[in-house]
Amino acid sequence: MSIGKIPYKIYLNEEEMPKAWYNLRADMKEKPAPLLSPGTYQPMKAKELEGVFCEELVAQELDDHTPFFEIPEEIRNFYKMYRPSPLVRAYCLEERLGTPAKIYYKFEGNNTSGSHKLNSAIAQAYYAKKQGLKGVTTETGAGQWGTALSMACSYFGLDCKVYMVKCSYEQKPFRREVMRTYGASVTPSPSMETEVGRKILAEHPGTTGSLGCAISEAVEKAVSSEGYRYVLGSVLNQVLLHQSVIGLETKAALDKYDIRPDVIIGCAGGGSNLGGLISPFMGQKLRGEADYRIIAVEPASCPSLTRGVYAYDFCDTGMVCPLSKMYTLGSGFIPSANHAGGLRYHGMSSTLSELYHQGLMEAVSVRQTEVFEAAEYFARVEGILPAPESSHAIRVAIDMAKECKETGEEKTIVFGLTGTGYFDMFAYEKYHNGEMSDYVPSEEELAVCRSKLPRIE
Amino acid sequence: MSIGKIPYKIYLNEEEMPKAWYNLRADMKEKPAPLLSPGTYQPMKAKELEGVFCEELVAQELDDHTPFFEIPEEIRNFYKMYRPSPLVRAYCLEERLGTPAKIYYKFEGNNTSGSHKLNSAIAQAYYAKKQGLKGVTTETGAGQWGTALSMACSYFGLDCKVYMVKCSYEQKPFRREVMRTYGASVTPSPSMETEVGRKILAEHPGTTGSLGCAISEAVEKAVSSEGYRYVLGSVLNQVLLHQSVIGLETKAALDKYDIRPDVIIGCAGGGSNLGGLISPFMGQKLRGEADYRIIAVEPASCPSLTRGVYAYDFCDTGMVCPLSKMYTLGSGFIPSANHAGGLRYHGMSSTLSELYHQGLMEAVSVRQTEVFEAAEYFARVEGILPAPESSHAIRVAIDMAKECKETGEEKTIVFGLTGTGYFDMFAYEKYHNGEMSDYVPSEEELAVCRSKLPRIE
Repeated sequence: MSIGKIPYKIYLNEEEMPKAWYNLRADMKEKPAPLLSPGTYQPMKAKELEGVFCEELVAQELDDHTPFFEIPEEIRNFYKMYRPSPLVRAYCLEERLGTPAKIYYKFEGNNTSGSHKLNSAIAQAYYAKKQGLKGVTTETGAGQWGTALSMACSYFGLDCKVYMVKCSYEQKPFRREVMRTYGASVTPSPSMETEVGRKILAEHPGTTGSLGCAISEAVEKAVSSEGYRYVLGSVLNQVLLHQSVIGLETKAALDKYDIRPDVIIGCAGGGSNLGGLISPFMGQKLRGEADYRIIAVEPASCPSLTRGVYAYDFCDTGMVCPLSKMYTLGSGFIPSANHAGGLRYHGMSSTLSELYHQGLMEAVSVRQTEVFEAAEYFARVEGILPAPESSHAIRVAIDMAKECKETGEEKTIVFGLTGTGYFDMFAYEKYHNGEMSDYVPSEEELAVCRSKLPRIE
Repeated sequence: MSIGKIPYKIYLNEEEMPKAWYNLRADMKEKPAPLLSPGTYQPMKAKELEGVFCEELVAQELDDHTPFFEIPEEIRNFYKMYRPSPLVRAYCLEERLGTPAKIYYKFEGNNTSGSHKLNSAIAQAYYAKKQGLKGVTTETGAGQWGTALSMACSYFGLDCKVYMVKCSYEQKPFRREVMRTYGASVTPSPSMETEVGRKILAEHPGTTGSLGCAISEAVEKAVSSEGYRYVLGSVLNQVLLHQSVIGLETKAALDKYDIRPDVIIGCAGGGSNLGGLISPFMGQKLRGEADYRIIAVEPASCPSLTRGVYAYDFCDTGMVCPLSKMYTLGSGFIPSANHAGGLRYHGMSSTLSELYHQGLMEAVSVRQTEVFEAAEYFARVEGILPAPESSHAIRVAIDMAKECKETGEEKTIVFGLTGTGYFDMFAYEKYHNGEMSDYVPSEEELAVCRSKLPRIE
């Protein structure tokens, strides 16, 4: 097939869709460090994790040698309802930029959850159902992950209990109602339903909550309720495994048209999208079969890779979850309230952290207003209104395409467009009204958080 | 290809996408009645219409004999950014209902405007650009059409001036911000910018506006501004022509797998979606080549086909626009404020009205709560959170599939899923909270509106 015939959108057909997830860790010589118990600082055993997570998910979490996990048929059928997602050739963007670069994006927003989160939500719900559980618990901030999980649970007839950060629950009622449409119960956190919630409310009456607190409530509810487990939408190895479907589809679509990317760009909060998108490409790189520039883009206001340290840290603010060795700003770090662009996690997937540590990928940080500027530009040219998170990758892709215009290089750039911004219009409104700040944490602020990291050798 | 191999989603490839729109009127022996001038009640001439609408659009509006209009390449390129839309086999819905019926839906929601409206918006913007205009004006209620037009104008570098019903402007800020993202200027209506707006504000200080008033402002602005014309998202023949792309793609996808539908179902407000969806099928029916049941579904609170009369009436509440012969409740009819489900137009496309009058299609009305019940059921089973408008068609498709379960008939049902409900979560919230009413206008109320129809022979 000639390169001139590449369609605007490359769709795989159903037979070409991935039948197995790819476990990137299997190809890493230096493996990511193991999770540690928050009580003993010793490596977590499957048994311990199974009190919180589903059994098969624990097995996936701990397995760093099996390269492929078959995607169960039930999950593949669900995937068929909204996948394959299109790999889009950004012809209009290229033309507007006047760049010789060829730009592609893998668009994960064409489903009601509005993002790639559904890829792992359906897998986690499936294993919960298979284990005979009644339901699962989780936390959500603005509601993207909660929405995805609600959809997945509704499909498998599982109860879904979401602790939603109270200020989002009150100020962003739309995703809450989407979750209710899918039958989830949504509780503003902190709540009186859990011990930790009651404790926080007693100490801080009138608090509007935080993600750390919501995690603690969701975990407590899971371990204290018969037939429930806790699920998480990012950071974990199991999540990267499920999200590898993004990268596998991307690679299959590129291969179908004999396209070889030079650069792969993804936004990075906890790493679920980036880890999924890059996995088969990074696999080739690890096996010495091919080389790519791989770039993680994070917000300047929450710069875990670019300004964090590589150390063991708690995965949650409440310090009840296991510790992970990762690039972290310290679990006490809380991004500025003015930061609207998502990707607010203090740490990073341990797999991505290790790859970054080995110099196999790069990281850059971008400021909020330049992210929204890119978002609006992209919306006007390519039609799709992007999520603020995704727009971090757009920013860097556009900048690189402009560089190509200067140098005349015909680079092939692939980036991940993780989702749509339909539920983020408050943030866009702020941007339109010139009320968006570009807060960046000071060295002093980061040093304070860093000083509180647990000391583990 | 064997029937057993039908994928979840049928996508046409780019070469299979329609290259011409189909003008249904060309195959009608009895043509729809002509538009009449609001001043003289005489048939509108092209010259008169060209003061308000773009020239080529006027030509399309008045042409009832040319069967095909080539889709200009610029529009086809834009279509490629979000089309072809998938024709989805509702396997999960069929299984959950336990029906032998085969259910397909044509999903038009996978674009930022969230609906099929973009199909005509881009065409109207193109012809405005081609005519060398500076911009266009329009009105919008909740903002679906305004969003679509903003996207289209942004693509062609046209100025876009939207008069948004003031209560929506204030209470539904999200679509307003989407329009601003695409560079449109959005004015709450009534405004001080137009004579009619100032007059209404003087007479009714504190009014929150109406669609009729916003139309009047948009038309005034267009005819009084150098280089501007007015555009409309439904009702008109030109809109049905552009929307035929929905039906043409649907038919091509069905033909590709040798599927012959028995029933085609679409929601109907002004008729843009229904008219587009059914056009090639109705064409076959008119030419005696095939027969299908075709069903228009309207809200019981605004039942123009099922309880209206077939007569000449004003297209707008303000009685400044031309008159159309159509099924109408009277241009003074205003649906209950409790009606959240869209499709609030007092009349109906003149083409669809004539076809209904000739007995070539059926119409049913459904109540609001049963529409939202179907919407939620569908969301949980098929994943997609539907627009309230689209859910009228879902309701009837589900009921028919249930009948098939009773009778054992293996009917093939196709319905139009016009869009997503992401910006309608206030309505879903009302439904969840049990606050949704099932208001249906009384015979007396309708008789009053009917008595005010213009008397034209």
